[in-house]
Amino acid sequence: MTGKLFAISTGPGCSDLLTIRAVNCLSALTILYAPAGRQGGTSLALSIVQPYLPDHIEIKLRHFPMTTNSLQKEHQWDAIAHEMAKDVDHDHLVGFISLGDSMLFSTWVNLLARLQNKIPIAIIPGITSFAYIASRCQIPLAMEQQSMAVISCTAPANEIESALVQHQSLILMKVTANFPLIKHLLIKHHLINHAVLVCNAALETEYIYHNIQTIDEQEKLSYFTTILINKLWQ
Amino acid sequence: MTGKLFAISTGPGCSDLLTIRAVNCLSALTILYAPAGRQGGTSLALSIVQPYLPDHIEIKLRHFPMTTNSLQKEHQWDAIAHEMAKDVDHDHLVGFISLGDSMLFSTWVNLLARLQNKIPIAIIPGITSFAYIASRCQIPLAMEQQSMAVISCTAPANEIESALVQHQSLILMKVTANFPLIKHLLIKHHLINHAVLVCNAALETEYIYHNIQTIDEQEKLSYFTTILINKLWQ
Repeated sequence: MTGKLFAISTGPGCSDLLTIRAVNCLSALTILYAPAGRQGGTSLALSIVQPYLPDHIEIKLRHFPMTTNSLQKEHQWDAIAHEMAKDVDHDHLVGFISLGDSMLFSTWVNLLARLQNKIPIAIIPGITSFAYIASRCQIPLAMEQQSMAVISCTAPANEIESALVQHQSLILMKVTANFPLIKHLLIKHHLINHAVLVCNAALETEYIYHNIQTIDEQEKLSYFTTILINKLWQ
Repeated sequence: MTGKLFAISTGPGCSDLLTIRAVNCLSALTILYAPAGRQGGTSLALSIVQPYLPDHIEIKLRHFPMTTNSLQKEHQWDAIAHEMAKDVDHDHLVGFISLGDSMLFSTWVNLLARLQNKIPIAIIPGITSFAYIASRCQIPLAMEQQSMAVISCTAPANEIESALVQHQSLILMKVTANFPLIKHLLIKHHLINHAVLVCNAALETEYIYHNIQTIDEQEKLSYFTTILINKLWQ
């Protein structure tokens, strides 16, 4: 049996932020699964890896519903996992691409939960959006004895607030879900001058706000909006 | 003026976990600064990038003292930053390599603090050791509304303990500094079966302990020892 499933992290958005290992892996695939946010939509992850795809690869665009309907999601994950396992059983080298890192806030984990220990799997790590943002904005993630928290802004407000108090360095992801609350908390805890907000990191539409105070609370921010806070860096 | 300083992240240890951008950058350098842990010692970071170095590059191995003597460290950082700035002023394309990601628990930040806004600087992000470990061990970093904390085990015990309670997912770095305490806390909070300990991640000497309970508290663990905990993953 030679089939195998590779979870390949694409990094945040620039094609040259893929690793050598990811590029080598892509070039050997026979089938690539790419996630599309909408039914019949395009895949951002696919556009990032496009320069490295071999000529005769079969692309399988698959829709992962963003709905809150858990049953619908689980049904779709089951179906895609089943299809991938069948391709691997037919000795294909199968890829699945994820934005950023495959193991951080990624749909891939739902497929892994279904396929782990059933078929051969390898996972290739990637540049997280926050590592990119720290380099891009020249603000360190954490130094010396500092601790860093990575928070989804879909979490309960009291959890977000206690993390803001406890840690010296913070990454707030999925900011759009809760921007008015986040802005309020940053002001309340005197963090707004230690924070930078980045929309669409590493994409052509990237936009960096160094002054979050000026962003209207009703502003329609991109789904890919992240805040980096480092209390000890000016 | 064409000189520039590039902070290049090497990732955790395998040469093929560098990004395409890092490899392209290395190939254009005229001078590369590489950190050595000991005076006259070798550089692990240098061995990782070796396959990508151009023929006529000048390598400057520089010693960064690990001492607790702050004055001695600051003096050394001042001297190296000064030397780098002079090389950039002489129109060199100068690199500095860091293990993992340059912006996370890295000596680079001390050079950045001295050189930011004084000379042209670009930073290239890298694969963090914990992203590598999550992929290697097939344990997710964080999912859905989970939050993740990255903690240095040199931090005060009460801070480590409250992070262990508060977050669903944790990365404990610099474990060697405090292993008996960490093992005690993992047992106390029933986390030991949700944790994996990795020494020398991505190096030839990599070693993974799935059962931390069995590690003797007096065991001499590598300086590069990291624990990944995910409370929601079996």
